[in-house]
Amino acid sequence: MLCCLLCWVNASLAAQDVLPSWNDGAARQHIVDFVKKVTTTGSSDFVPAEQRIAVFDNDGTLWAEQPIYFQFFFVIDQVKAQSPQHPEWKTTEPFKSALAGDLKGVAASGEKGIAQLMAATHAGMTTEQFARNVNAWMSTARHPETHRVFTEMVYQPMLELVHYLRDNGFKTYIVSGGGQDFMRAWATAVYGIPPEQIIGSQGELKFELRDGKPVLMKEAKVALIDDGPGKPVGIERFIGRKPIFAFGNSDGDQQMLEWTASGDGARFAGLVHHTDAAREWAYDRQSPVGKLDKALDEATAKGWTVVDMQKDWKAVFPAEQK
Amino acid sequence: MLCCLLCWVNASLAAQDVLPSWNDGAARQHIVDFVKKVTTTGSSDFVPAEQRIAVFDNDGTLWAEQPIYFQFFFVIDQVKAQSPQHPEWKTTEPFKSALAGDLKGVAASGEKGIAQLMAATHAGMTTEQFARNVNAWMSTARHPETHRVFTEMVYQPMLELVHYLRDNGFKTYIVSGGGQDFMRAWATAVYGIPPEQIIGSQGELKFELRDGKPVLMKEAKVALIDDGPGKPVGIERFIGRKPIFAFGNSDGDQQMLEWTASGDGARFAGLVHHTDAAREWAYDRQSPVGKLDKALDEATAKGWTVVDMQKDWKAVFPAEQK
Repeated sequence: MLCCLLCWVNASLAAQDVLPSWNDGAARQHIVDFVKKVTTTGSSDFVPAEQRIAVFDNDGTLWAEQPIYFQFFFVIDQVKAQSPQHPEWKTTEPFKSALAGDLKGVAASGEKGIAQLMAATHAGMTTEQFARNVNAWMSTARHPETHRVFTEMVYQPMLELVHYLRDNGFKTYIVSGGGQDFMRAWATAVYGIPPEQIIGSQGELKFELRDGKPVLMKEAKVALIDDGPGKPVGIERFIGRKPIFAFGNSDGDQQMLEWTASGDGARFAGLVHHTDAAREWAYDRQSPVGKLDKALDEATAKGWTVVDMQKDWKAVFPAEQK
Repeated sequence: MLCCLLCWVNASLAAQDVLPSWNDGAARQHIVDFVKKVTTTGSSDFVPAEQRIAVFDNDGTLWAEQPIYFQFFFVIDQVKAQSPQHPEWKTTEPFKSALAGDLKGVAASGEKGIAQLMAATHAGMTTEQFARNVNAWMSTARHPETHRVFTEMVYQPMLELVHYLRDNGFKTYIVSGGGQDFMRAWATAVYGIPPEQIIGSQGELKFELRDGKPVLMKEAKVALIDDGPGKPVGIERFIGRKPIFAFGNSDGDQQMLEWTASGDGARFAGLVHHTDAAREWAYDRQSPVGKLDKALDEATAKGWTVVDMQKDWKAVFPAEQK
């Protein structure tokens, strides 16, 4: 009797503990129902642990992405830090605009300009040096509007979701258009996701011996753009099986959600909809960053789970937790 | 007292159970000593479980590779199977030689010829169709000399090593010059290594919707040659941390071993030396397949562990187990 009572109390506590920053609502319920059915032995929807693959976009899904992708703040700060060694940058685009913090000027330089900025800040150094650069920047740089360090701009409800899935035997992956090496430098500590489960856009690497010591040099040549149709490619190449759970927030995630949803058996496809101008930002179909248009229509048509950030989340950032 | 006796008996049994197909000798001892020191809490060489990354070459390290890489038998058999739809192949190289089983003729067609054969057999189909082709072939094709199915030509002592490492908290990876999709089709069942831990040479993939259903098409364009200096590249890209344990058998593994050995703390670098003409094949510095020359010199110079297949292994293939 005491035992039963203890079980009941524990079960009740456990139910309360799950996803505490999520309001009761359809989105939270879809998640909990899905996890329950794929983890219940004997259920027709049961999925063995090794096949419980969950993939998450990063920018706009696990952390914020306004007014521009945070990796771009890193690019601009690295250009500024290197500028004393490059006096010609003061008069040469796209560096001139980057040094002035003129994002429109940078955008005007087009893909070629972006590639030049990436080459100057993400290539021509060893993987170890790059990781040191990212970590040094991440420990001091602050968001221009919230004045928080960027690792504090992750979404508390999504952190809880990632942990909840892991507690239920899921293997959690990041599958992001952002830079793989950029994310791996900090995301393991922040999300508890190991480097081998962080997939992103990536450049070519070159093995070299320097003073007899092997290094990997980062080259200014793209190996994979892990965005849009590149996401299922990254998933197949790195994971080699179809996820059963995927979460994104933009049209760049549409093919990842389609790929996930196309498998047999129970599947979960979710979108974070940025609806909260007071606590975060409100944007979707017209936004140059994190545009959510076609994927929102497909979510409606196919019954994917759409999280209304304003209604579904009690807190947005960890600092707001009660 | 009974408890102590049980502990002692269990420990003795466990020691006997470890690597039973390995003869007592320096190679076996190096392995056991290494595993013991990196897994003993409080040891100065202790390595936390999440950093216990072990990488294995496949061809010549986990399974045999003579007289040619087994994947090439698959290529030839696929060309034969497709030849009724390609009457022009009877008179066009490299297909003419492939259809005749004339390996020298195929080799004479050079890299361009090999690329044409790979394109005809490894591209222009979905990833799912390719996996079906590999599995169908693997269940029936037999080695021309041993007449065994190819999955029976794995090395029993290496199977035991992979399991021994896993039992000690290691995460075991294949890092092979062979085709990633080719290996993933069968290697999980044979080695117990999941697809996401099988890294190999790979082509580009393209996401497409076919009748509204998403597929990934295999393209005839190389994305990574995971051999030689490409192995550390594959390791960094897929795993994102340096292994502490690596096993290979040829010069194609040299940079993987260098990369592994270059890390701080305890490291293990091993080579399988094919010395057993009676039970397997004997070859090294002059062999066109699995050439072991520079890496053997480096192993000697640096004290890497070299397995003498004839002396160190009680059995080579699973069928020979006592």
